[in-house]
Amino acid sequence: MPKTHAYATHNATLPLEPFNIERRNPGPKDIQIEILYCGVCHSDIHQARNEWGNALYPMVPGHEIIGTVTGLGNEVIGFNIGERVGVGCMVDSCRTCPDCQDHQEQFCNSTTFTYNSPDKISGGNTFGGYSSQIVVNQHFVLHISEKLDPAAAAPLLCAGITTYSPLKHWNVGKGDKVGIIGLGGLGHMGVKFARAMGAHVVLFTTSPGKISDAKRLGAHEVVISKDIEAMQAHRASFDFILNTVAASHNLDSFTELLKRDGTLCLVGVPDQPHPSPSIGNLIFKRRQIAGSLIGGIQETQEMLDFCAEHQIVSVIEIIPMQQINQAYERMLKSDVRYRFVIDLASLKNES
Amino acid sequence: MPKTHAYATHNATLPLEPFNIERRNPGPKDIQIEILYCGVCHSDIHQARNEWGNALYPMVPGHEIIGTVTGLGNEVIGFNIGERVGVGCMVDSCRTCPDCQDHQEQFCNSTTFTYNSPDKISGGNTFGGYSSQIVVNQHFVLHISEKLDPAAAAPLLCAGITTYSPLKHWNVGKGDKVGIIGLGGLGHMGVKFARAMGAHVVLFTTSPGKISDAKRLGAHEVVISKDIEAMQAHRASFDFILNTVAASHNLDSFTELLKRDGTLCLVGVPDQPHPSPSIGNLIFKRRQIAGSLIGGIQETQEMLDFCAEHQIVSVIEIIPMQQINQAYERMLKSDVRYRFVIDLASLKNES
Repeated sequence: MPKTHAYATHNATLPLEPFNIERRNPGPKDIQIEILYCGVCHSDIHQARNEWGNALYPMVPGHEIIGTVTGLGNEVIGFNIGERVGVGCMVDSCRTCPDCQDHQEQFCNSTTFTYNSPDKISGGNTFGGYSSQIVVNQHFVLHISEKLDPAAAAPLLCAGITTYSPLKHWNVGKGDKVGIIGLGGLGHMGVKFARAMGAHVVLFTTSPGKISDAKRLGAHEVVISKDIEAMQAHRASFDFILNTVAASHNLDSFTELLKRDGTLCLVGVPDQPHPSPSIGNLIFKRRQIAGSLIGGIQETQEMLDFCAEHQIVSVIEIIPMQQINQAYERMLKSDVRYRFVIDLASLKNES
Repeated sequence: MPKTHAYATHNATLPLEPFNIERRNPGPKDIQIEILYCGVCHSDIHQARNEWGNALYPMVPGHEIIGTVTGLGNEVIGFNIGERVGVGCMVDSCRTCPDCQDHQEQFCNSTTFTYNSPDKISGGNTFGGYSSQIVVNQHFVLHISEKLDPAAAAPLLCAGITTYSPLKHWNVGKGDKVGIIGLGGLGHMGVKFARAMGAHVVLFTTSPGKISDAKRLGAHEVVISKDIEAMQAHRASFDFILNTVAASHNLDSFTELLKRDGTLCLVGVPDQPHPSPSIGNLIFKRRQIAGSLIGGIQETQEMLDFCAEHQIVSVIEIIPMQQINQAYERMLKSDVRYRFVIDLASLKNES
């Protein structure tokens, strides 16, 4: 394998820095990919800094990968050299359990995540997309339409599927009133998807400064969630609310906005627990609080095709690899609209 | 109207005592009912003692009513004098809102509950089934099969529908693995229904003394929920778990027993909040925590017909009206298997 440049961190308190890694030689079903762009997910920070307590160092983060096929194992079907492809949060799973059989590999008990995960194929741990190339089993490689800007498509691989999957699972469509809580990397994708699916979209934010952005991105209405009166005006009117805010906050002011049989779906685990939700709010309209985790590979491809059809990509700020540590600091101050994407061409200057 | 004997309480700390009330003369759509039996629901105690903060005194509790039709308004259709009927938790609703139109009167914003509720028809407050007779709009009167023991059928009107409705709503049936948490007035009905619906039924209890009862009532398995190892053996295996325990307790040890897309449904509001549930448990298998409230009138009739078909009634202990205060004390010590039912014939001795 040619030398693979990457950026890695070596413990929870160190910045990311240049690092060389080994990728495996492509097996019969593997695809070798030159990485063009990699989105920067907030979970990259959590894991790099071991905030979830499961860090494996050295760690090369990155699971929003867009690249070009540069090599194909002899059993690969349906991919071509030079084709634009994507890799998301997963690079392997057992492929035999009920979840895998149902195309829900994200719920498999032995999913191999794209980075910071024991690698059953080559031993060691997986290294992610903050690198010049990657080798992935074809099952976990996605086709990316040339209609999509490749840099702006990178965040679709995590932020995109994380919001698309629950909207689809709970059958959001025309005639539905859908809330999206938070306008960040996930939330801005949720607004775009819910709008494209035909729903009436209401964005909830604590930041009045985001109202105009939210409307431009597709929200029909924006509600400042601290405004009790504005919230009360929407009581018992939502079919579905997607909560993209992982910080601990009171869920009751949102569950009471749901219609009978409505669902509040959470896609982020807060560092501190949310205040215990009101069971009365659930019982008196048979409401539900649910969780959702990224999406399966088949659904990720469906989402990417939906994006190509509806011209949906992320709103991004492109950075060179060398600025990743500053980007992390800006993300911690919510100073990004709405996703950083690393241009991996910047790594070539270091080679 | 003939004199109506009842038992009432006059404030949160007094015992129930004999009391005479006025029932309205039956209107064109009303049915007059001589009450034979009335089940004693734990919510009767909560309300009599103003533990929910909404008590209206004097209060005549009781919403698990079985009786005989003694009078019919001239527009009543489908009921006959002498017929056995039931009345549950509701005696009126708006009949026009989307919830009412969908036969989900329990979620109507202006439901009139059978007792302790402002009565829009006659003014004052509603008085419940701890009384010799009641007058109810025909829409809220249920047909009770003569195949069912009338005393043991009384708890079907609240405990029955409260457990039947969520099992039906979440499509419990053959091939499903269903958990019921708690073997009390609600839980023992949940076990019977889930079994009759064809599910594999697992009863969770903290009381080893209830194992044999649970199996006799229909549970295929009984798990002592404090036994961590026994609980772990059921990880990620349940389609649906019905939580009939209203006391504050940790929900995580149950959510983790749900399969992907499984639901933990709560039917009781705890006095103290449950510990905040793990959002990770919800996200990693797309699980849900939901609430459910009794059931609509149409579904209550369906449940009663299901009971007649499957010979399902409650396990009861019959008491005279005069022992209601002692019964409350025993209920607070969980010393009842599994529902007290008042024999209203006992009131005649006082007339």
